Amino acid sequence: MENTRTEISTLGEFGLIDHLTKNFEIQNASTIVGIGDDAAVIDHYGKQTVITTDMLVEGIHFDLMYTPLKHLGYKSIIVNLSDIYAMNATPTQVTLSIAFSNRFSVEAMDEFYEGVYAACEKYGVDLIGGDTSASQKGFIISVTAIGEVTPDQFVKRNTAQPGDLICVTGYVGGAFLGLTLLEREKKIFLENPQIQPDLEGEDYIVGRILKPEARRDIIQFFEQNNIMPTAMMDVSDGISSEALHLCTQSNTGCKLYEEKLPIHELARAAAYKFGLDPTVCALNGGEDYELIFTLKQSDYDKITLNEEISVIGYMTPPEEGKKIITKGGNTFDITAQGWNAFKG
Amino acid sequence: MENTRTEISTLGEFGLIDHLTKNFEIQNASTIVGIGDDAAVIDHYGKQTVITTDMLVEGIHFDLMYTPLKHLGYKSIIVNLSDIYAMNATPTQVTLSIAFSNRFSVEAMDEFYEGVYAACEKYGVDLIGGDTSASQKGFIISVTAIGEVTPDQFVKRNTAQPGDLICVTGYVGGAFLGLTLLEREKKIFLENPQIQPDLEGEDYIVGRILKPEARRDIIQFFEQNNIMPTAMMDVSDGISSEALHLCTQSNTGCKLYEEKLPIHELARAAAYKFGLDPTVCALNGGEDYELIFTLKQSDYDKITLNEEISVIGYMTPPEEGKKIITKGGNTFDITAQGWNAFKG
Repeated sequence: MENTRTEISTLGEFGLIDHLTKNFEIQNASTIVGIGDDAAVIDHYGKQTVITTDMLVEGIHFDLMYTPLKHLGYKSIIVNLSDIYAMNATPTQVTLSIAFSNRFSVEAMDEFYEGVYAACEKYGVDLIGGDTSASQKGFIISVTAIGEVTPDQFVKRNTAQPGDLICVTGYVGGAFLGLTLLEREKKIFLENPQIQPDLEGEDYIVGRILKPEARRDIIQFFEQNNIMPTAMMDVSDGISSEALHLCTQSNTGCKLYEEKLPIHELARAAAYKFGLDPTVCALNGGEDYELIFTLKQSDYDKITLNEEISVIGYMTPPEEGKKIITKGGNTFDITAQGWNAFKG
Repeated sequence: MENTRTEISTLGEFGLIDHLTKNFEIQNASTIVGIGDDAAVIDHYGKQTVITTDMLVEGIHFDLMYTPLKHLGYKSIIVNLSDIYAMNATPTQVTLSIAFSNRFSVEAMDEFYEGVYAACEKYGVDLIGGDTSASQKGFIISVTAIGEVTPDQFVKRNTAQPGDLICVTGYVGGAFLGLTLLEREKKIFLENPQIQPDLEGEDYIVGRILKPEARRDIIQFFEQNNIMPTAMMDVSDGISSEALHLCTQSNTGCKLYEEKLPIHELARAAAYKFGLDPTVCALNGGEDYELIFTLKQSDYDKITLNEEISVIGYMTPPEEGKKIITKGGNTFDITAQGWNAFKG
C-alpha cells in the first residue's frame, strides 16, 4: 500500500472507472467495444454479442424495508436488460450471482427468484448460470446480461453529431418521486411504527421505482421502421447526467427544452405534493430505465407516430456548451447531479 | 413472505441452487448448456461462447488481513478463467464489478486493478466492462468470464462413462495448507501483535492460496494432442467434492487411489508440521484450481508424457459406489466435505 491516500469521493464513480481502466489495452481482435458504454460488444466470427453487468448492493441501491424481494429480483434483471437494449441489441441470456447473510431464508430466496424468473420469462431471456454465497452483511446481487445484435447495428454513446435530435422514451422523473415517497414513509414509520404507510393513489410513482420495465418495444420499433439512432444510452442517473455523457463522449454540445421533458401527470402531481420541482426530478432523478438517443433530423418523420418517443432537444457543436432552455426562456448550463454513492 | 422459514443451511450451496433453478425452462435455442456446469455455453449462429461468473466476498472468500489487494485482483480473474478452461474453452473477455466501503482509497483500488490487469495480460483476456459501487461493509467482487470453444468441443461434467480414467492436473491440497498457515499466523498476531508472521520456507503453500494459476497449458496440450476428455471440471472445493460431482452428474461410481493423489512434497511437509493428514487436505481442501477430468482408457498413451497429469482412479458403474482405496488397502466411501459457507 502506498503512503498517499486519495479518497474515492475525489474521483466519483465515473472518474474512478476512468482512472482504473485508462491504461488497459485490448488484446483480442474479437473485442469490438470495451469499457465505457452501456455494454461491451464481442465479435464471434462476424456475429456480435453484447455483454453488460451491474451490481446491486443492499443499503446502497435498495432498501429491503420497502422493497419486496420479488420486485427486487425482477428489477435486478431489468436494469441489465435495459443496458442491452441501450446498445440496440436483444438480450438472450443472464447470469446471476448473489451473496446474502443467514438472516435470509429459503422462502425469501424463492421470492427473489420468482421475480428473476418473471423478468426472464417476460423478456425471453435464459438464466444460464451464477453463484450463490454467504455475505457478512446485507444482500448483494450481480447480474451479467448477454445479447445479440445484427453485425455493426449496435449503437454507442460517442457517435452523435451536432444537429441530431435528442429523444427520450416514456416518462422521466417518476422513479425518483417514488423513491422520495418510500423514503418519507419509512422515516415516518421509524419515528412512529403505529402509523401505516400512506401510498394511496401513488401506484404510478411507486411502480416506477419498484418495478421498472426495459424498453424492448423501442428496439423492436427501430427495427420495424428501419431507424438507426446515432447514439443511445439508458436513463439510469437522470436526463442531465445522461445528456452530458452523450455530449462528452460524442464531443458535442446540446440544447434541451424544459417544456419538452416528458413528465407523467401523476409524477408532476406528486412532485408538487412533495414541494419538488418536476423538472429537477426529471433532470436529476435516476432509475427511470428509459432510453435517451439521438437521431438524424432526416429520420424525424419516422418517429412522429410513436407516442412513446419525445424529442427534447438537439445536439450542437461543442463550443456552444450543454444548455437547457427553461419555459420562461432562460438558458442554463446543464450540470451533472448524477449519482455518486461515494460522497457524503 | 411465507410464514414458514427454512434455513439456507438445510439445503447447502448446491442444494439451494438446485432448489432455486429446478423449474426454470430454457427459452432461447441459442442456450446450449445452462446452469449446473463450470460455465454455460451459448450458440452464436453455429459458433459457441462459454460464460461463467463468480462472486468473492470479504470475510467469506478472502481475508484482507493477509491477502494483498494485488493478489486478490489476480485471483478474482483466475478463478473465473479456471471455469472457462474447465469447459475445454479459451477465455477471451472478462467483466468485473466491485463494491467497497469508503475505507478503501484510490491507491488501494489501483493495487487491486494491478492484479486484475496482470492476470488479464498473462492469459490474454480483455476486461470489457463492469460496475463499481459503494458497499455498507466489506469488499465484494463479481467477475464474469467469456470464452470461445470450437463448436461442440466443450466438455461438460455429466458425460463420463464407467471405465474412464480419472485424472487430475498439478498438485492438490497445497492451497488449503497455505490458508491454514495464514489463519494460524493471523490468530497468533491478533493475540500478540508483537509477534511477526512466520512464513519462512512456506512460499509454496502460501503461493497456492494467494496466487493460483489457471490451467491454460492443459487445454493447449489437449488441443495439440487431439485429446478430448469425456468430462471435466475445475478443482475449487477439493478432490472429494469434485469427484462426487462428476459421478453424480454422469451417473457413475468411482474408485480413487490414495497413493495416486498428487501432493507436492512441500505441501506434505507442511501438513505433517501442522499435524494434518496430507490426503485429507487433498481430498477436502479447496481452491487449488487444478482440473479434474475423465478420459477414455484408449487415450491413456496420449497423456503419459505430460508430467502435469496424474491418473488417480477410474469411473465405475453407479452401483459400485464412490470409493477411495487407502495406501493400506482399505476401501472407504468418499464423502463430500465441500465448502458450505452457510453452515456454522
